[in-house]
Amino acid sequence: MRLSRYFLPTLRETPREAEIVSHRLMLRAGMVRQQSAGIFSWLPLGLRVLNKINAIIREEQNRAGAVEILMPTIQSADLWRESGRYEAYGKEMLRIRDRHERDMLFGPTNEEMVTDIFRTYLRSYKDLPLNLYHIQWKFRDEIRPRFGTMRSREFLMKDAYSFDLDKESARHAYNRMFVAYLRTFARMGLRAIPMQADTGPIGGDLSHEFIILASTGESEVFCDKAYLDFDTPAAETDFEDRAGLQGIVDAWTARYAATDEKHDEAAFAALPDADKLSARGIEVGHIFYFGTKYSEPMRAVVTGPDGKEHPVHMGSYGIGPSRLVPAIIEASHDEAGVIWPDAIAPFHVALLNLKPGDPATDGACETLYAALGAAGYDVLYDDREERPGAKFANADLIGLPWQVIVGPKSLADGKIEMKRRATGARELVAVDDCLARLKA
Amino acid sequence: MRLSRYFLPTLRETPREAEIVSHRLMLRAGMVRQQSAGIFSWLPLGLRVLNKINAIIREEQNRAGAVEILMPTIQSADLWRESGRYEAYGKEMLRIRDRHERDMLFGPTNEEMVTDIFRTYLRSYKDLPLNLYHIQWKFRDEIRPRFGTMRSREFLMKDAYSFDLDKESARHAYNRMFVAYLRTFARMGLRAIPMQADTGPIGGDLSHEFIILASTGESEVFCDKAYLDFDTPAAETDFEDRAGLQGIVDAWTARYAATDEKHDEAAFAALPDADKLSARGIEVGHIFYFGTKYSEPMRAVVTGPDGKEHPVHMGSYGIGPSRLVPAIIEASHDEAGVIWPDAIAPFHVALLNLKPGDPATDGACETLYAALGAAGYDVLYDDREERPGAKFANADLIGLPWQVIVGPKSLADGKIEMKRRATGARELVAVDDCLARLKA
Repeated sequence: MRLSRYFLPTLRETPREAEIVSHRLMLRAGMVRQQSAGIFSWLPLGLRVLNKINAIIREEQNRAGAVEILMPTIQSADLWRESGRYEAYGKEMLRIRDRHERDMLFGPTNEEMVTDIFRTYLRSYKDLPLNLYHIQWKFRDEIRPRFGTMRSREFLMKDAYSFDLDKESARHAYNRMFVAYLRTFARMGLRAIPMQADTGPIGGDLSHEFIILASTGESEVFCDKAYLDFDTPAAETDFEDRAGLQGIVDAWTARYAATDEKHDEAAFAALPDADKLSARGIEVGHIFYFGTKYSEPMRAVVTGPDGKEHPVHMGSYGIGPSRLVPAIIEASHDEAGVIWPDAIAPFHVALLNLKPGDPATDGACETLYAALGAAGYDVLYDDREERPGAKFANADLIGLPWQVIVGPKSLADGKIEMKRRATGARELVAVDDCLARLKA
Repeated sequence: MRLSRYFLPTLRETPREAEIVSHRLMLRAGMVRQQSAGIFSWLPLGLRVLNKINAIIREEQNRAGAVEILMPTIQSADLWRESGRYEAYGKEMLRIRDRHERDMLFGPTNEEMVTDIFRTYLRSYKDLPLNLYHIQWKFRDEIRPRFGTMRSREFLMKDAYSFDLDKESARHAYNRMFVAYLRTFARMGLRAIPMQADTGPIGGDLSHEFIILASTGESEVFCDKAYLDFDTPAAETDFEDRAGLQGIVDAWTARYAATDEKHDEAAFAALPDADKLSARGIEVGHIFYFGTKYSEPMRAVVTGPDGKEHPVHMGSYGIGPSRLVPAIIEASHDEAGVIWPDAIAPFHVALLNLKPGDPATDGACETLYAALGAAGYDVLYDDREERPGAKFANADLIGLPWQVIVGPKSLADGKIEMKRRATGARELVAVDDCLARLKA
């Protein structure tokens, strides 16, 4: 993409309303614009990151056997009356009346609707296990939305819902998502630690939050340092292998890890001091097993091998992509701007032409732009007529993993400069070696 | 995808509520489920088609120079008061009050919001031309939603918005989208004919609807038969070439074509009888040039080369993906089910194992499933324990372009049967030749 034809409205000034660094950087890097309190437009650069995150989530959900659907944003209040949550949900639910005076709502979550889909079509234990997920915009009318898209009112959520015949199978379904989440966050360059969690309005008796560590995190967390060195389950993990998955989950839950809500001072104190880690954390995922909480009142039942009807055992599994964007920035930035992990960077390479209009730099840039693009790299080519200093600052701010800098002096020696954003390391390489250096 | 692990709830019975064939087939093929009047969940098969359509739209929007963003579904009423449309829009607008008693709405379209984004960031004619698009769920509270996702209340829309310094440049922006739309529909296997249109509540004085012909279409259309043989503009079309694009648009608008709203009986009568085509049509896209209708009241201005402020000239360009799905089915089906054009088929191949449990058919199917997948084909493998007749009927119903049929008898001779869904043509081919036959 040529920057001259792109829409990247970066800001020089730090917007006053931004309280945390990710909010500030997302506004400054032209990633989002607030349209109303807690409601954002995603500008081109932000949308690219969001889509990269969604793609990783999808791959890992599919790998774990979940099947993608797409439920609507607007739901009927009647469904929520069946589960008993319509009155219980409170003012965070955005309630709507349509032109026929029917009570509707903008879905804050989808347990009721997906249970309704299940009961419409499925009758037999032979149709199980089933896990349906979608990635859709939700709304929670927070009284005081803040921190940009970290705590917004309209937010994107991947929510998956598992259906099983009994508690044991449901535990396997839970473990599948547990492992999928470990892989999902690791692929985004994050170290997420599963911690026992309260179940809140979703209900149930088994639940984990996935927390990443960041000094600006919203809550205090306590855990065993060993988690920082745990290996992420491999892509080849057999999700059908019940015992194998349980082994992974057991290992990832054997050591101490708790948010302040669930913190057990005594248990933590029993750890050797060298193993204690207390830090700030950001919740990036939350999984629940809640058994028959929805299937019983809503009559989502299947015929079992015994010929009798059984309400299905369910779990739900959430990740917030629009929250992950700032969470990743909180975990990965410096004074100059964002530092994107390679896997979710909006572009791989910032190609900086330090002297547009100069036939040599223009020619080299066009050659590199074509070659890198042909090799599958997404390149943002800064072809604007701007001072080099402005281009450097802009590239650092938007935080692409690589900067390829083409200036007339180095180019006279057949060289360009390549800078790795994360480390700041720079090196001069021959123009023809650029692609090989990126691949290395 | 193995059908045994998929969620494809096909129906044997024709649902009573379905009035048109696409609605009937989308329900029977397990593509969508109605959740409330005019509000649908997209089940896995339907979602795959929707995503294929979105991908083609994106490619053609990007090729034409438009840049993707994502605006939220919920908008502030204040923006619409600025343009004067808040009161004017009537009951089709879903109006909402949030917990702070602020007037909000579920966006039916985004002219106001995108104009607000423009005025926030852009100041100079040097930033132009600009075309921003998004693909987002919209809501229009139709009094009587019907025909499934053809006329739903919550619907998906790609809407693009162009910004230019003057009318002449805006005309070029309009022509870019005109040509992009011709390519978009052609790639979906549709012959869309641009017809002069009323501008309705969007406003403006230049507008075309893109209409596809289908015997069940909602409106009557009249046009010159020559349009059926027009060539679609090539992928290599230079979208920067003003004169070239104008030439294409001139050719595509030179002959008679009108919906009944704009029909000119006398002009149509003047055509030679052999050239007259009157038929039913379905609107699949609508483009508008409306000049400064929004930029003037909302003060979206740029400084021109003359140093003075100019309100920008705008256009908007809509395609409804959730409407295109049924529109394509209306244009492409038979008694037995849907016939997907290759480019938007949810899977390329239905692989039918006629005798699951038989080592020979199981082995051949697994080999084919792996080989076709490795070659980049999306395969839906019917590995269920069902009678062959049920599998054939199911494959015809869901309408994948190819059926690869593996039965014990043919397989004893080393053969499988390949059926082309569109023509019904069947042939026996050697197992090893399957891939070559698909490619041919």
